[in-house]
Amino acid sequence: METSRYAIGVDFGTNSVRALIVDVETGEEVATAVHDYTRGERGVISDPDNPHVARQDPADYHEGLLGCIPAALAIAKSRPGFSPEQVIGIGVDTTGSTPIPVDAAGTPLCMDPRFAGNLNAMAWLWKDHSGMAEAERITEIASANRPQYLQRCGGTYSSEWFFSKIWHCLNVDREVFDAAHSWVEFCDYIPALLVGETNPARLKRSVCAAGHKAMYAADWGGLPDAEFLAMLDPAIGALRSRLYDHADSSDVRAGGLCDEWARKLGLPAGIAVAVGAFDAHYGGVGAGVKLGTLVKIIGTSTCDITIAPRESDAASIPGVCGVVDGSVVPGYWGIEAGQSAVGDIFNWFVTDVCEAGPELHDTLTRQASELSPGQSGLLALDWNNGNRTILVDARLTGLLVGQTLHTTRAEIYRALIEATAFGAHTILNRMREYGVPIEQTIACGGIAEKNPLLMQIYADVEGQPISVTRSSQTCALGAAIFGAVAAGAYPDTETAQAAMASSVSATYRPDAGRQAVYAELYALYKRLHDSFGIAGHSDSLGDIMKKLLDIKQRATA
Amino acid sequence: METSRYAIGVDFGTNSVRALIVDVETGEEVATAVHDYTRGERGVISDPDNPHVARQDPADYHEGLLGCIPAALAIAKSRPGFSPEQVIGIGVDTTGSTPIPVDAAGTPLCMDPRFAGNLNAMAWLWKDHSGMAEAERITEIASANRPQYLQRCGGTYSSEWFFSKIWHCLNVDREVFDAAHSWVEFCDYIPALLVGETNPARLKRSVCAAGHKAMYAADWGGLPDAEFLAMLDPAIGALRSRLYDHADSSDVRAGGLCDEWARKLGLPAGIAVAVGAFDAHYGGVGAGVKLGTLVKIIGTSTCDITIAPRESDAASIPGVCGVVDGSVVPGYWGIEAGQSAVGDIFNWFVTDVCEAGPELHDTLTRQASELSPGQSGLLALDWNNGNRTILVDARLTGLLVGQTLHTTRAEIYRALIEATAFGAHTILNRMREYGVPIEQTIACGGIAEKNPLLMQIYADVEGQPISVTRSSQTCALGAAIFGAVAAGAYPDTETAQAAMASSVSATYRPDAGRQAVYAELYALYKRLHDSFGIAGHSDSLGDIMKKLLDIKQRATA
Repeated sequence: METSRYAIGVDFGTNSVRALIVDVETGEEVATAVHDYTRGERGVISDPDNPHVARQDPADYHEGLLGCIPAALAIAKSRPGFSPEQVIGIGVDTTGSTPIPVDAAGTPLCMDPRFAGNLNAMAWLWKDHSGMAEAERITEIASANRPQYLQRCGGTYSSEWFFSKIWHCLNVDREVFDAAHSWVEFCDYIPALLVGETNPARLKRSVCAAGHKAMYAADWGGLPDAEFLAMLDPAIGALRSRLYDHADSSDVRAGGLCDEWARKLGLPAGIAVAVGAFDAHYGGVGAGVKLGTLVKIIGTSTCDITIAPRESDAASIPGVCGVVDGSVVPGYWGIEAGQSAVGDIFNWFVTDVCEAGPELHDTLTRQASELSPGQSGLLALDWNNGNRTILVDARLTGLLVGQTLHTTRAEIYRALIEATAFGAHTILNRMREYGVPIEQTIACGGIAEKNPLLMQIYADVEGQPISVTRSSQTCALGAAIFGAVAAGAYPDTETAQAAMASSVSATYRPDAGRQAVYAELYALYKRLHDSFGIAGHSDSLGDIMKKLLDIKQRATA
Repeated sequence: METSRYAIGVDFGTNSVRALIVDVETGEEVATAVHDYTRGERGVISDPDNPHVARQDPADYHEGLLGCIPAALAIAKSRPGFSPEQVIGIGVDTTGSTPIPVDAAGTPLCMDPRFAGNLNAMAWLWKDHSGMAEAERITEIASANRPQYLQRCGGTYSSEWFFSKIWHCLNVDREVFDAAHSWVEFCDYIPALLVGETNPARLKRSVCAAGHKAMYAADWGGLPDAEFLAMLDPAIGALRSRLYDHADSSDVRAGGLCDEWARKLGLPAGIAVAVGAFDAHYGGVGAGVKLGTLVKIIGTSTCDITIAPRESDAASIPGVCGVVDGSVVPGYWGIEAGQSAVGDIFNWFVTDVCEAGPELHDTLTRQASELSPGQSGLLALDWNNGNRTILVDARLTGLLVGQTLHTTRAEIYRALIEATAFGAHTILNRMREYGVPIEQTIACGGIAEKNPLLMQIYADVEGQPISVTRSSQTCALGAAIFGAVAAGAYPDTETAQAAMASSVSATYRPDAGRQAVYAELYALYKRLHDSFGIAGHSDSLGDIMKKLLDIKQRATA
């Protein structure tokens, strides 16, 4: 019998990092270990004076690697015949955009005693919104001068993204900005660290991070040009040459594991480390995304991941903000979309309207399960946190219509679930219109595993099967798949997925009768969607929510 | 010192009857007593096989007179100088339309041993909906043949009204129908009884009851013509000649108190008994309705009562269903409008959504009081029980828009109150467009007395003062006023009101700043109102709620 080979996937989340050891031939998950960050509030470092600030200390990342990989190896060693020598590759995914200011050697500035404890010298976590004003200006400047830069990020540059954060740093902490030789995404920093090549000029950059958050595209020669960046600030324009011109997909080897980290982790030196990427994209790969299959990560919000042929119109799907060549499966357009709130809407209803504890979810789900589609007479829009896809408008709000004097909270709860299903359907329809084939959905995340009612409603609304992944750590599994690919164990990502990606534990199939009712309800949903969501639409009520928000803002001021 | 004179107002409600003794010169409320009906469930007799049936036994009415008037007199007698000999007149109001099948002598058929215990031989209480199918047919037949008959009842004849009930009786109990020589409204039956003239051919009929519920108007010669009624059923056509041709306003004397009832009640024989009317109309009079003043009775639903000059366009206000010459103050158009649900919407939210007890109203009101107009970002339509005025459409439903992940239940509660204020404003605007002057509102009912937040919101939305009546029994007070007028104590109703109608205990005045914000919110409310409420409107979403209800009906079947 041939000796087994293993790959390690490392998944850096907001509060912890997980290592997963996977059998390269079978995809079997052999061992896993989690390390919780110790700094700040579960790893998130806040500024008491500015609620928009969210930073992380890269020391937590270093400790995380040391905390989870050896621990997973120790568990795997209890397995007969396992040895760390059989590990052939490592893949890494992280949150993003989480850029880190580094010196010329690639060392995070916060590790320089000059900047010890300075939040601006740390990693700027994905959910840091301190660069809101800068994001608005970037949108304005790009709209006026480089509209193509906004095309693939939905027309609006976000405060969560690379250049908003860098520019904000320039505006609030010139000393840190000037000391930063370059800025490195978290998902590029870890592979660079592991291969011992942290020099910003030479370390490999992820096309996933670059394409989604830094307006990178091979079409226009990589990152935005220096002239454009100088319109933000001449200092940003000058930084351009110290960033990068090329980014890679994750089937590319970032390098071999360096001696230092091989020793620290207890792994063979020289094994492959793959170019990194963002967590949701690896989750898609681990869950088995392929042509015709969309992976939906359902949590407080949702993330939809799928791929489309390069010859399709996927690169210009209106309202789908994350289309990047090779960001998911190399060789295809990687497509990322999502809903701004799903579980968060149910949590809002239970917590803020019903003023109940989380146990009410079970009760309401059970009661809502006894209703049939359309029975409540209710229809909702799922915009309590705005609409990310396909309207790309944070200033939309929720709507509930159809209530009588007898409407129950279980009916409302079901209507909210249905609204999120209609929102998901709207996204899939838009993708299909632009040649993205979607024949089935694979869901992962806590709600997918725990809420059969929601899953059945999604199947009935979509008229297609929706399955749940057996693995509950598809991000780390996707990372392991890329570790195996980078190690040359498979000729390409798809072949590796076929062997290693998660199987499904349950499949929900649509019922024709329920599907027909939902088709009627969806037609109404779509009219509300267009009327309230699209300014200037022929039946437009599209300014109503905006005006309410304007009034609210003034009333609150 | 001149001896005081008194009038008695008798107010027959759904569950009880109240007598109020009032000083004719000062309006002082000298004594009151209430008699609770004893039959059925608090006076309402149901059919276990048909939830739409609601009847009353007129024996409860007889006992009610005997129960409350002598009791009130007994209390008044403890007052120095009071004697029943000083009572000069009686006024009576009742619920309606509550028609009673009677024999040729005017005796309710259920008092005939042949029909003892037969629900169809009793009084058909206002909220009996068993004639739904008949009401729909009446609407169809009138639309096609006598559209003018529907003009003043909003285009739709209701199952609660006179002819729906009579026709339903014909359809389900031919024996009772055939035995009925005529049908008499509750508010006509009591004065007839008191004056000893119950002969259906001679007893005085109320123009208020006739005009609102029996399609009576002097313009077209009284009740609907026999040819039309024969289109319903030849037997209804034949009944026409045994109904009536003329109806009177309440300043007219129905007759003098007969010896028998004078003796039973302990009152002087021969004193004036006024022609009766419906409770809300007398409530308006007791609360001080006059040109420029609208009386709003705020309860589970609202009833708006006002008057307009005869030369105004009040008789053809679109969507205002209760315009009857002399139904409120003789000499003016009496106008009755209202909202299908007000308190019921707040009760629904507390009971069915929050699943809390009534004490939550106080908490939510207190929390909602801390918010300023527009602060919640929410806007609601107050249509949970349809819209009576001005859309006259029972198949409209509620709507809430603007919710985020942070919306609180107090914000929703305030938005619901505001929605009812906007609904009230829409009614008043429509009236004003047709020449009905409204410069202030006088409110009565439990919510008006107990909820200063609601009252202030109503004042701010309307931009006019709204006052609360000091009297909490304005219906009985209005009845006493008509008792005094019928007795000749005053030359007309307005002079009597000036002396006797209730004063106000509190006045809420608009705040200019809040009024300005509400003007902006109202503009949005009106767009939602028109879009969702008016089919074929240019921005129409007017079929959305209907389609939801159609789907609901099918899903529930």
